[in-house]
Amino acid sequence: MALETPSTSQPNLTHKQMIEHVISLFRDTMPFNQLLGLTFVTQGEGDDTQIALHLPWQASLTGNPMQKILHGGVTATMLDTIGGLVAIVETIKQTRTHDLADLQARLLTMGTVDMRVDYLRPGRGEAFIATASIIRKGNRLVVCRMELHNEKGDHIAFGTGTYMLG
Amino acid sequence: MALETPSTSQPNLTHKQMIEHVISLFRDTMPFNQLLGLTFVTQGEGDDTQIALHLPWQASLTGNPMQKILHGGVTATMLDTIGGLVAIVETIKQTRTHDLADLQARLLTMGTVDMRVDYLRPGRGEAFIATASIIRKGNRLVVCRMELHNEKGDHIAFGTGTYMLG
Amino acid sequence: MALETPSTSQPNLTHKQMIEHVISLFRDTMPFNQLLGLTFVTQGEGDDTQIALHLPWQASLTGNPMQKILHGGVTATMLDTIGGLVAIVETIKQTRTHDLADLQARLLTMGTVDMRVDYLRPGRGEAFIATASIIRKGNRLVVCRMELHNEKGDHIAFGTGTYMLG
Amino acid sequence: MALETPSTSQPNLTHKQMIEHVISLFRDTMPFNQLLGLTFVTQGEGDDTQIALHLPWQASLTGNPMQKILHGGVTATMLDTIGGLVAIVETIKQTRTHDLADLQARLLTMGTVDMRVDYLRPGRGEAFIATASIIRKGNRLVVCRMELHNEKGDHIAFGTGTYMLG
Repeated sequence: MALETPSTSQPNLTHKQMIEHVISLFRDTMPFNQLLGLTFVTQGEGDDTQIALHLPWQASLTGNPMQKILHGGVTATMLDTIGGLVAIVETIKQTRTHDLADLQARLLTMGTVDMRVDYLRPGRGEAFIATASIIRKGNRLVVCRMELHNEKGDHIAFGTGTYMLG
Repeated sequence: MALETPSTSQPNLTHKQMIEHVISLFRDTMPFNQLLGLTFVTQGEGDDTQIALHLPWQASLTGNPMQKILHGGVTATMLDTIGGLVAIVETIKQTRTHDLADLQARLLTMGTVDMRVDYLRPGRGEAFIATASIIRKGNRLVVCRMELHNEKGDHIAFGTGTYMLG
Repeated sequence: MALETPSTSQPNLTHKQMIEHVISLFRDTMPFNQLLGLTFVTQGEGDDTQIALHLPWQASLTGNPMQKILHGGVTATMLDTIGGLVAIVETIKQTRTHDLADLQARLLTMGTVDMRVDYLRPGRGEAFIATASIIRKGNRLVVCRMELHNEKGDHIAFGTGTYMLG
Repeated sequence: MALETPSTSQPNLTHKQMIEHVISLFRDTMPFNQLLGLTFVTQGEGDDTQIALHLPWQASLTGNPMQKILHGGVTATMLDTIGGLVAIVETIKQTRTHDLADLQARLLTMGTVDMRVDYLRPGRGEAFIATASIIRKGNRLVVCRMELHNEKGDHIAFGTGTYMLG
């Protein structure tokens, strides 16, 4: 996940505006997320925003035509994407309002440093849900744990990702 | 990467036939590899086979429309795929001919156990090449190191993957 | 963590006996665990056994004399040790009694395949506690998540380990 | 590996002096490195300095008294230590001389962010040698690959470590 946003000139963004801005960047302007058909499900707003990634099963996302099993690369993509998005959103929440413009500039060079994926069971299901939580939060470095479940709650994969913010 | 092949009844496969069979499975029957446009480039044949994955840059594989940077999920997909394929091919090379049918049965439940990806620099380029080499080879467990370069030889990412064979 | 136990001839071990046997191997016969001063704290017995590793702070385990911070290698050692031990104990719990002798033979070549450690904050404290839980359980391969806390409950480190059993 | 050095007031350090200073910190002032008996072997000096960690086999560093196999925690310690040391030394080499005082201040909060260890074969041998090379070098973040061999050149383990400098 590497994010380089166009510089914008919105000097007085609120937390809520900036979180919505980042989610729309991930949802509307990243071609590979759209190719996969990722949808972004949010609960709450502003500092209460919780985000999950949803993906309905599709034949084109499988590793094998005989089995309805998700390709491991799709799993990795979902985990990397939700980890990066949650890393940014949590950073926004903890940033003082008048520093948001500075943070926005730093997002230009935000990216994944490294990621580990643990594949727990074959990716079978009708829909897949990726979530993330933060385990280390520094000024420029954020570490997340991510999870992928199917619609029944079966645990498909774990991830751990280290992200650099500008 | 999770591979579950249909059971076939080819009792007397040679190494060369089985390697070609596995490459064709990855190339021709995995929808997500085809969605990405992965091509499989081999040099030599039989026990001398060397394999690389090639991918031309496409707008649909990027993480951001302003930049021609590969989505980190595409990088992870290429590394997982080449690691799994090389793990199988090397296992075939080291399997005695009369044990190939047994190996073929075990490939039915082959899969990635875990993978680490290190993103070294933004995925810019006209084409991307993934390669893999084996660092640990057991009867059922294989560990690979993978690399992704662009067409200029810039090193985009490293990977380490642990694979289980049946 | 690599365990190679002497072959013993105890044909009819119960789960409880075998779990106690494995804990005593880790506690009493592994010189490096003793050099560090690791203690093994169990709750319950037999299939209800829960295990944690405890370590009091000692100057000799620090990375720097000015600070009372645990060396990262001590953290890694504790996480690897508790992960391997819990992997074995959980495998014993799920093994049918008459297969325990077979499992015991396989423990001879048990070992860590790979491990990731995430260092969350400096290892400060008067005592450190390592715990583990299983996230993937196969016949020969077990994946654990491990955690290290100090006596106040501060979360020092996360680990993920992949273990092979014979 | 977490390094917090005492603040010193040496305003005009050369590269050579600062590299020697850091090596002496690791060698002479870190109790756990001394407990293990790690020795630091350097070739060249100043910007040509190459560093390796050496460790003679000792019974107290093993995981099992029946076998002369290194405890996995010792392997992890050696890899983390050489990775952190090489990350610092390479950063010094690339720092302009008049910025060395600033770098020295940042070393106060240097630490390992995450590390992966791949155990390739049992740690048998009379002596062990750890080396590291840098695969990603940013202003504050360095990623290293580390290797552990025995005195015969057998490859015991690989590591990948992400380090934060201040």
